[in-house]
Amino acid sequence: MLKRVGLPVLAAGSLWIGALAIGAPPVAPAPGQAPVLKGATFAADGKLQRPEGYRDWQFVTAGVGMSYGPAAQAAALSGHVVFDNVFVQPEAYRSFRKHGVWPEGTMFVLELRGSETERPPNNRGYCQTDIHAVEVSVKDSGRFKGRWAYFEFGMDAATASPQPESGCFACHAKNAAVDMTFTQFYPTLQDVKPAK
Amino acid sequence: MLKRVGLPVLAAGSLWIGALAIGAPPVAPAPGQAPVLKGATFAADGKLQRPEGYRDWQFVTAGVGMSYGPAAQAAALSGHVVFDNVFVQPEAYRSFRKHGVWPEGTMFVLELRGSETERPPNNRGYCQTDIHAVEVSVKDSGRFKGRWAYFEFGMDAATASPQPESGCFACHAKNAAVDMTFTQFYPTLQDVKPAK
Repeated sequence: MLKRVGLPVLAAGSLWIGALAIGAPPVAPAPGQAPVLKGATFAADGKLQRPEGYRDWQFVTAGVGMSYGPAAQAAALSGHVVFDNVFVQPEAYRSFRKHGVWPEGTMFVLELRGSETERPPNNRGYCQTDIHAVEVSVKDSGRFKGRWAYFEFGMDAATASPQPESGCFACHAKNAAVDMTFTQFYPTLQDVKPAK
Repeated sequence: MLKRVGLPVLAAGSLWIGALAIGAPPVAPAPGQAPVLKGATFAADGKLQRPEGYRDWQFVTAGVGMSYGPAAQAAALSGHVVFDNVFVQPEAYRSFRKHGVWPEGTMFVLELRGSETERPPNNRGYCQTDIHAVEVSVKDSGRFKGRWAYFEFGMDAATASPQPESGCFACHAKNAAVDMTFTQFYPTLQDVKPAK
């Protein structure tokens, strides 16, 4: 059985209620308040459902050859050029630009794709090809002790369990510029000041 | 004086009217019909206004080091790694996926950005930095003899005239996979069959 992250689920998360949700209407938040996001879908066993439709979300940035995650690292060892495309829900993006903190329910998708060169008429450089892996981060203080959790779906897994905190989480906690996210790599978010 | 591409302008384009618009309501097209797009803004002198808000449009793909346009070519000669991000209006994207042809008013934005490597914690590969140039294509059969026209805004030009047909146009006409667009480089559009 699947359940949506939204008011009914988040109402059980006391951290979230205390911080943000008191008085917030269920759909359109009042000015200055964080939006209520829907999107992350968890199965009864706590696994995250592979997100659909993320290609229609807000594009954040793309990189190439960056050593995020196991799929990128394996590709790097093989000498293959891998692209990463980063997406986040549009409402989360707008809220972060305004408040300097990601709202509860924020979900990032890191899509890793292979590459090809010399596809006509391109005679140099690289274009993107097939999906190598999808990796996801979710901010949900009511569900995760560290507020954020990280999930690896590989090429086609339908569900994924949170990764151990020694993995993605530890690197984000140590190196991420703002609220566990690598805004130092996101050209349109580098000017956002973190919430006090 | 600026005017929007929309029904009032397109009504003067007989090709467009003949092909697509008869009977189409002004906002929501009937099922099976192409959407009426707004977006391209032309000044009275025929110059295209630099598009705003395109980062919120549909992300199509990103490439690196591809030799599109003068800015990319100049960067290639200097050895600098340049990213290209491609965006199109969401309505145009959905219509193309359905019909195999881009609707009148379609506008593509090719955003060229510089790159940086070894920005911590990234110890290899490249992330994106500042804007080098913005290039735009517009499909408007009522306005352009060749249906499509191409515009180069460089780093910060507010308006741009159509490029001569010997430039971008000639390469797109010769090499583009479908309807003057390089869908061979767009991983989520490669399965779209061209309209008969």
